[in-house]
Amino acid sequence: MSDYDLSIRGGTVVTASDTVRADVGVRGGRIVAVAERIAGAAREIDASGLLVMPGGIDSHVHLAQPTFGGPKMSDDFETGTRAAIAGGTTTVLPFAMQPRGAGLRAVVQEYHQEADGKAYCDYGFHLIITNPSPSVLGQELPALVGDGYTSFKVFMTYDDMVLNDRELLEVFECARGCRALVMVHAEGYDAIKFMTERLERAGKTAPYYHGVSRPEIVEREAAHRAISHAELTDVPIMIVHVSGREAMEQIRWAQNRGLKVYGETCPQYIALTADDMKGLNMDESGGKYVCSPPPRDHASQEAIWQGLQAGVFQTFSSDHCPFMDGVDGKRSPKAKTSFKWVPNGIPGVETRMAVLWGLGVDKGRIGMNEFVALTSTNHAKMYGLYPQKGSIAPGFDADLVLWDPARKETIRQELMHGACDYTPYEGLAVTGWPVMTILKGKPVCEEGRILGAPGDGAFLKRGISPYASK
Amino acid sequence: MSDYDLSIRGGTVVTASDTVRADVGVRGGRIVAVAERIAGAAREIDASGLLVMPGGIDSHVHLAQPTFGGPKMSDDFETGTRAAIAGGTTTVLPFAMQPRGAGLRAVVQEYHQEADGKAYCDYGFHLIITNPSPSVLGQELPALVGDGYTSFKVFMTYDDMVLNDRELLEVFECARGCRALVMVHAEGYDAIKFMTERLERAGKTAPYYHGVSRPEIVEREAAHRAISHAELTDVPIMIVHVSGREAMEQIRWAQNRGLKVYGETCPQYIALTADDMKGLNMDESGGKYVCSPPPRDHASQEAIWQGLQAGVFQTFSSDHCPFMDGVDGKRSPKAKTSFKWVPNGIPGVETRMAVLWGLGVDKGRIGMNEFVALTSTNHAKMYGLYPQKGSIAPGFDADLVLWDPARKETIRQELMHGACDYTPYEGLAVTGWPVMTILKGKPVCEEGRILGAPGDGAFLKRGISPYASK
Amino acid sequence: MSDYDLSIRGGTVVTASDTVRADVGVRGGRIVAVAERIAGAAREIDASGLLVMPGGIDSHVHLAQPTFGGPKMSDDFETGTRAAIAGGTTTVLPFAMQPRGAGLRAVVQEYHQEADGKAYCDYGFHLIITNPSPSVLGQELPALVGDGYTSFKVFMTYDDMVLNDRELLEVFECARGCRALVMVHAEGYDAIKFMTERLERAGKTAPYYHGVSRPEIVEREAAHRAISHAELTDVPIMIVHVSGREAMEQIRWAQNRGLKVYGETCPQYIALTADDMKGLNMDESGGKYVCSPPPRDHASQEAIWQGLQAGVFQTFSSDHCPFMDGVDGKRSPKAKTSFKWVPNGIPGVETRMAVLWGLGVDKGRIGMNEFVALTSTNHAKMYGLYPQKGSIAPGFDADLVLWDPARKETIRQELMHGACDYTPYEGLAVTGWPVMTILKGKPVCEEGRILGAPGDGAFLKRGISPYASK
Amino acid sequence: MSDYDLSIRGGTVVTASDTVRADVGVRGGRIVAVAERIAGAAREIDASGLLVMPGGIDSHVHLAQPTFGGPKMSDDFETGTRAAIAGGTTTVLPFAMQPRGAGLRAVVQEYHQEADGKAYCDYGFHLIITNPSPSVLGQELPALVGDGYTSFKVFMTYDDMVLNDRELLEVFECARGCRALVMVHAEGYDAIKFMTERLERAGKTAPYYHGVSRPEIVEREAAHRAISHAELTDVPIMIVHVSGREAMEQIRWAQNRGLKVYGETCPQYIALTADDMKGLNMDESGGKYVCSPPPRDHASQEAIWQGLQAGVFQTFSSDHCPFMDGVDGKRSPKAKTSFKWVPNGIPGVETRMAVLWGLGVDKGRIGMNEFVALTSTNHAKMYGLYPQKGSIAPGFDADLVLWDPARKETIRQELMHGACDYTPYEGLAVTGWPVMTILKGKPVCEEGRILGAPGDGAFLKRGISPYASK
Ligand SMILES: [Zn+2]
Ligand SMILES: [Zn+2]
Ligand SMILES: [Zn+2]
Ligand SMILES: [Zn+2]
Ligand SMILES: [Zn+2]
Ligand SMILES: [Zn+2]
Ligand SMILES: [Zn+2]
Ligand SMILES: [Zn+2]
Repeated sequence: MSDYDLSIRGGTVVTASDTVRADVGVRGGRIVAVAERIAGAAREIDASGLLVMPGGIDSHVHLAQPTFGGPKMSDDFETGTRAAIAGGTTTVLPFAMQPRGAGLRAVVQEYHQEADGKAYCDYGFHLIITNPSPSVLGQELPALVGDGYTSFKVFMTYDDMVLNDRELLEVFECARGCRALVMVHAEGYDAIKFMTERLERAGKTAPYYHGVSRPEIVEREAAHRAISHAELTDVPIMIVHVSGREAMEQIRWAQNRGLKVYGETCPQYIALTADDMKGLNMDESGGKYVCSPPPRDHASQEAIWQGLQAGVFQTFSSDHCPFMDGVDGKRSPKAKTSFKWVPNGIPGVETRMAVLWGLGVDKGRIGMNEFVALTSTNHAKMYGLYPQKGSIAPGFDADLVLWDPARKETIRQELMHGACDYTPYEGLAVTGWPVMTILKGKPVCEEGRILGAPGDGAFLKRGISPYASK
Repeated sequence: MSDYDLSIRGGTVVTASDTVRADVGVRGGRIVAVAERIAGAAREIDASGLLVMPGGIDSHVHLAQPTFGGPKMSDDFETGTRAAIAGGTTTVLPFAMQPRGAGLRAVVQEYHQEADGKAYCDYGFHLIITNPSPSVLGQELPALVGDGYTSFKVFMTYDDMVLNDRELLEVFECARGCRALVMVHAEGYDAIKFMTERLERAGKTAPYYHGVSRPEIVEREAAHRAISHAELTDVPIMIVHVSGREAMEQIRWAQNRGLKVYGETCPQYIALTADDMKGLNMDESGGKYVCSPPPRDHASQEAIWQGLQAGVFQTFSSDHCPFMDGVDGKRSPKAKTSFKWVPNGIPGVETRMAVLWGLGVDKGRIGMNEFVALTSTNHAKMYGLYPQKGSIAPGFDADLVLWDPARKETIRQELMHGACDYTPYEGLAVTGWPVMTILKGKPVCEEGRILGAPGDGAFLKRGISPYASK
Repeated sequence: MSDYDLSIRGGTVVTASDTVRADVGVRGGRIVAVAERIAGAAREIDASGLLVMPGGIDSHVHLAQPTFGGPKMSDDFETGTRAAIAGGTTTVLPFAMQPRGAGLRAVVQEYHQEADGKAYCDYGFHLIITNPSPSVLGQELPALVGDGYTSFKVFMTYDDMVLNDRELLEVFECARGCRALVMVHAEGYDAIKFMTERLERAGKTAPYYHGVSRPEIVEREAAHRAISHAELTDVPIMIVHVSGREAMEQIRWAQNRGLKVYGETCPQYIALTADDMKGLNMDESGGKYVCSPPPRDHASQEAIWQGLQAGVFQTFSSDHCPFMDGVDGKRSPKAKTSFKWVPNGIPGVETRMAVLWGLGVDKGRIGMNEFVALTSTNHAKMYGLYPQKGSIAPGFDADLVLWDPARKETIRQELMHGACDYTPYEGLAVTGWPVMTILKGKPVCEEGRILGAPGDGAFLKRGISPYASK
Repeated sequence: MSDYDLSIRGGTVVTASDTVRADVGVRGGRIVAVAERIAGAAREIDASGLLVMPGGIDSHVHLAQPTFGGPKMSDDFETGTRAAIAGGTTTVLPFAMQPRGAGLRAVVQEYHQEADGKAYCDYGFHLIITNPSPSVLGQELPALVGDGYTSFKVFMTYDDMVLNDRELLEVFECARGCRALVMVHAEGYDAIKFMTERLERAGKTAPYYHGVSRPEIVEREAAHRAISHAELTDVPIMIVHVSGREAMEQIRWAQNRGLKVYGETCPQYIALTADDMKGLNMDESGGKYVCSPPPRDHASQEAIWQGLQAGVFQTFSSDHCPFMDGVDGKRSPKAKTSFKWVPNGIPGVETRMAVLWGLGVDKGRIGMNEFVALTSTNHAKMYGLYPQKGSIAPGFDADLVLWDPARKETIRQELMHGACDYTPYEGLAVTGWPVMTILKGKPVCEEGRILGAPGDGAFLKRGISPYASK
């Protein structure tokens, strides 16, 4: 009987700190050895010429999330996680959103039902707190943190989710007590509404004006406000989907003062610009790029790279929020009346790793080890999945992506595996591509062919984030 | 017949830029000549050995302002302006506050009635906008700006006055249109309320906790927010009563980016600290120092001096807000139950100039010309009183203070001329003191003796601020 | 007998702080009155519709300065001061330069001989210290400070003048002791030499490469170094001719830390760019714009305006350094072999005020009072000429310029009054122009016609700078 | 025959990114496997309850370095590397210093002779360039880089080593061409000399004044200068032994601008202060703490921690420079006449890891992974030793330290293994201590007992630094 169910042989193992020629031995779905030579496994995969990296962890993904009467998200747990594994990602962290008035526990139960038996990859849930009532903050949230839902997101904008400053402070203080990690969507509600109405009054309703309605000032102000609330309550926060220099400099300023403020950025902020939302002659096709915060300009992209290089950002996530481009999405009749009704969000869970590799590693802006940290390891550490997920070493789940750094591909919709009908990165040529994804020792995707099945993925009960408890 | 009703002879004339040995000739209440020698005036005042400076302008004074059921302010227009002239100040700008729901025009009329025939010195009105309804912003405010009420204050805290972000944005946009100068009280309402309740729950109710409940973070956050709203709407703002480094650095940051953000500071931030609010063993006597923002610490005082030296601040005002120290004020039965009920505000209109001279000019921190700019000239320019007020040159009103730079005094309540029953600067020894105040050519105070009368002062219809229209 | 030799009537008097309708009365060459109406003077000048401002003080001018074998400066005291008064300037502060090895006192005597009886306007001398020997620092310099030479310049570059760090420190310490104000030419000698040789080796010898050889980095580094030396020895310094954002931000950084670091900028940094040095197709005509530090780009010009607005700079000087454009100057045979031999310096004493007014006041970037401060008052205060020079008030010398803010002119060489054969501002159209210059009560130039004579100007023994002794 | 010569079993393996329970298998001196269970090795070491970390790399060590007539360093290659392994360090990078005038190649040969057969641990050489002649920069240095001496240090101070700015620029440009990594000792020579003489003239000659003679200003200025030169020549630099906030902020400023500027700090800047140099009543015992830059104060220590946390610093080295405390060192007759003659440098190669663990990891300031990065991995990457040294993974040399995180020790001289007669950390109580050091698979120290022998260590030919070639 062999010591190993599986060995990945001949590849170059890349972790957040190291790059070594090594074989990887797997038994019972877990990595049990990393060695120069692992012979005699029940199954061997030849990784010669390939990089063996930890499977991606995408800690910011929206799947099957209700939209309060707006267009439905195209991806449920089945299609969304299928896209994930096709892109090299083996763990996703979507959001269990509390509709105002609903109990948190009930929401979590429902969300479990959405996911049960459907997922192609592992998953955990962040919570979204929209209703920080005494019972939510006093009982439900702490209990859920104890049950492995150790992080949650709060919104500083959106009618159905916005918390006011008082609520943010209450939530932050609660997070401090139960050591949950707070994720903050930092855009100022009132300012956006003010800008939106001004634009609408001026007849500026094309998708492009979505960006104008929420300029960097609005994101920076909210970031500063969230940081101040965090400083006041002495609680770490993660500011998600940072789009440009202004908000980034607030985070850097906070970090330089010794505050525990973390940052996330996303593919759209290094690969898209506000001009993409112009579509063809300001038409509705610009809606394909509408997300919040919106993409900015080339100078902002450079700022984001600086932040990635200098350690301002810990994680690179997709903020996958997959609305269709058709009439049941970006081009709904209502959306044509104003950018305000264009659903906010774009797909990205499948392309996240290829975009960062192509624009980052292949162009020499970041190294391979930084790539692994930004797409996997840091997510695991930040969100309490470590040391189960996020690296290649004995004891970790055998979640791996075999990466061909020389493979040239052009991102296009026909390559995609999710339910969404477009990709905002259509036509982007990259060098570097995932050629096999392995989940807990099982190859689940190879050269774009799905080998896994719904139910391969399991729910992850997460631990307390070490970033939240420092 | 003499060319001059009055001449001030033998003194050293100090303006915001110049210091010269000169006589000053007055006719019809206005300065008509500044010359080496002005002989033959109907009346001559000997200013040998004295400095002749523009009468002080205190652009931040609260007189006879309703307090929504709280203790009454001790000073009305009569006592407050009497204190002003005793301290060398010849113009004050108090606030006509709009109670929620009231019309602005009616408020202004009522406030005129409060002032008519009572004032010892000239005065104009800032408005306080608490209810930015369409009719207020669309009609009343622009009309009042046209009538000479060219500035107004908005509050980011206080139950009865706080504006939310949407309202602030609407008000800022309106100010931009009618070229009014916006004054901002920058402290975050929700954060203060949150902190206050937390402190009260912990039984920390002594006056000292007033300061703890509104730390610099809260002021800084509000300053950043106001600056962001101003940047978004492209409107100049004046952030008043800045207390320490944190808010000051936001203003400097904005100024360095080329934004039109101005700053004011006050005597309490260079002469008091949070520890003063401890009183005797945390007793109620600490209430005498309760104002908002609260005094900070010695490092903050140094920061304020830096800001005064480097031009971050344009004006030095008293924020005179005269609550009594007795049972009808700082020591009310309610106030004893929580710092929250200690009325926010301290007297200072009479001591403002002596405190800045004593701690600033006499200690070598600022020069005499800067003193004049900070106590008079810049107020006149900032608030549309220039060139009627604020300097010594032909054409200006003959508002003067004769200052003895060598006079040693110790500030104490028995020297004061207002209605308040204490001074927070009790015991502060200073060198430099006003020995005569002249209003429109008439000596109204000499060596602490009031020579003027109620009604000497007139209402000032102000012009558009050049700072608002740049 | 009249009280006044002269009155200037009907104009608007502008000082560094005030703008008033007033007449100015003069007796014995000094201002004795500023009044609404001054009648009965022996001579009256009608200034209706004009601004009456303090005559310009140009505190950075090179006249008749030896160049160690290089081309001669075109202007001596006669032609240079003739140009000055034609441009509205009534006081210049040129440099008495110590050749290495020479005694300071002897240098000063020789320079007096150059100036005696020749000057059309008043003048003082800065010293240039190139040889800080014990006798120079121990005896000559303190004695000369006592005799009214209260400021000196040191160079961080140029073969014949550069001081090394040790020498700078010795000189700074000496300045601290005798309260002289130190002016610093901040460019790094070694870096320039290194860059120059590299460019020459690459065959890049056109005038344009002068700018490349001394980029902003080099100026910033030297500014930081000078600031550090000043901080170490606790002595105030004035960094002259600041060209762009990099050096400016060092000065701002120092000022924000409370250091006594001052700044000067010049017309070339708001009106010229490095591209001007390209001439026609990189030919020798680019030499006309060669000065040090070199002009930068449009972003730098914006930075300089920000610095002027925010108070980073106290003075605006010409750095008039008048080399001819002909074969005895910019186009010498040697200059054609390398930019290194193109003499560094351009004329500007006559155009300084018109350039700042035209680009600054007329375009709304700065106000009239700031104009007066930057071109006159602050120079007087900075260099110990106050209160004899620099403002309009009783006691000041009657040095005035009558300015027509509506006059449109195009700067061109045929309008110039100096000895130089070109102006670098040729073709610049401005609105605002000096129409009469008055020196100590005597009109010396009117509408471009010189009315004064050599010898009208006298040597000014200067006092200790209040900026040096704070 | 076993697959493994050695296995380390039962421990927790810590790398720069990961912490896992794993056994480590070694064959032929190299790590060949990291696995859950490695049985059957020829020799097994029980690491239960211990951390298994990469052996320390100390990239800043002075051994057997000539001192130009000053006291001899106490450690040669034998004693110095013996101390290293006792402290958990398995690779050191001392300096082959070029005396002025000497050829580089000859120096390297001599230094090899010093080291040959003596070292207890592996070693490479940095060069020190004191004489950047054309032949050194044109031939010797590039050739030596090719031979594996891929980094060198330059000094901005010290009589015998200082390079002027021109030389620095030449050296930087050369480094750029041959892709050597430049290490910079950033302190300003002239300023130190100036301060020293001033102090000596004032009779301030005690060791304490060493610190006064080189304040943070002097280090900051040199750091800024080096950064500017690096920016000009577009070459990465490493600023070594950063002592406090001032220099650190220059590095952070440079990093934020996207410059490739790296930083190192040392134990003395987190564990000592300037006051230590006071000794007993300012006596000569303060000399034990004299090093350059000198230790600062507690606020500086906090700044250094911030820099360690925020990624400003890449490496934590000892700057081991072992002068004796006796008459042949710190207390020489000459040293008693002035701090100037107290040799600059303190021992630290043995205590480096324990100090950082004790004050950093044990106190919660940094994590274990950061500890490994700062003491080992980043040194390997920075100086071209990766992937031979610096981590625990297949292919790496089996250089390991077994660390007991619970062991309490008090640092004291009797525990030390080098030749120096004191430790500046005498009496420092720490928790966390190395209990076994393994060099290329051979235990060389266990519980303070040396098991290795001179000659165990070999010379390391290093590759080009990836930091230099980015
Ligand atoms: Zn979001
Ligand atoms: Zn999202
Ligand atoms: Zn207020
Ligand atoms: Zn107030
Ligand atoms: Zn110069
Ligand atoms: Zn010059
Ligand atoms: Zn060193
Ligand atoms: Zn060293």
